[in-house]
Amino acid sequence: MNGLLAVYTGNGKGKTSSSLGHIIRALGHGYNVAVVQFIKGSWQTGEQNFLQGQDGVDFHVMGRGFTWNSEDLTKDVAIAREAWKLAKEIIVNNKHDLVVLDELTYLPHYNMLEEKDIIEVLMNKPKDQHIIITGRYASDKLMDIADLVTEMKEIKHPYKNGIKAQAGFDY
Amino acid sequence: MNGLLAVYTGNGKGKTSSSLGHIIRALGHGYNVAVVQFIKGSWQTGEQNFLQGQDGVDFHVMGRGFTWNSEDLTKDVAIAREAWKLAKEIIVNNKHDLVVLDELTYLPHYNMLEEKDIIEVLMNKPKDQHIIITGRYASDKLMDIADLVTEMKEIKHPYKNGIKAQAGFDY
Repeated sequence: MNGLLAVYTGNGKGKTSSSLGHIIRALGHGYNVAVVQFIKGSWQTGEQNFLQGQDGVDFHVMGRGFTWNSEDLTKDVAIAREAWKLAKEIIVNNKHDLVVLDELTYLPHYNMLEEKDIIEVLMNKPKDQHIIITGRYASDKLMDIADLVTEMKEIKHPYKNGIKAQAGFDY
Repeated sequence: MNGLLAVYTGNGKGKTSSSLGHIIRALGHGYNVAVVQFIKGSWQTGEQNFLQGQDGVDFHVMGRGFTWNSEDLTKDVAIAREAWKLAKEIIVNNKHDLVVLDELTYLPHYNMLEEKDIIEVLMNKPKDQHIIITGRYASDKLMDIADLVTEMKEIKHPYKNGIKAQAGFDY
């Protein structure tokens, strides 16, 4: 297996969904998968319901503790570092064929993590491990070291017509 | 539920993967899902391994019979019509909360199906049913009637560096 580093970025819908789709494929080939969701909010998502407890999947939601409150930034930074520490361990331990780092890009973008550290870990990832990173604002450096980059470009979004996020579709 | 018509198009990776990700979300909320893959080739995919026989999923691969041989176009057109007939029945019967029509766009693009018929069925779809259509060359008319359109734009693709399609990642 030739492990790929894939980045799904851009402002359109489909970034996290794509990474979830790759999980289906990986499981269908009997691979082990680890997921770290860095940002996902406080509501229960369909992917969590389905994937937590699924054979072959280690599923971690780390972003629940975020306050997104500028006065409490120290706490948020601590949570971000904890999440990245876990992700790094998962990569280095190399027990998973596919590692999904969902919405990781926001953390260096908002200066909650050092991009340098992330790039170093990714450049030294196990050769047969696939890693998928999702989120807006993927940096040039990240796209530079990636094997695959797709920009999800928003052409049309239902929220703009007043349609709210739908269970089973958006989360 | 406010059923959405979503289109994932463009030349980049992530269209089918996104639709598979939506299936995970839907299943996580206890929804019923139907999948019709219109084009997928003759190899066994991870998504088929995983989704066929999965509770709540009706999975159909229709494109296996295609010859893609211009001398045998009549046979391909017959298969395309058969696949679309099935998809239409699934939509109209309204027994599924999410219907994925994977790579449907290629069929009208290559004149194997009448786009007019597809548009009419989609415009009259059950109100609480989500439909996701994937594939390149989505027509203006299709994007016009859709609630959500994302263009997956290829920024970088590993095949261009000589890396072959990977089991568990690409299929």
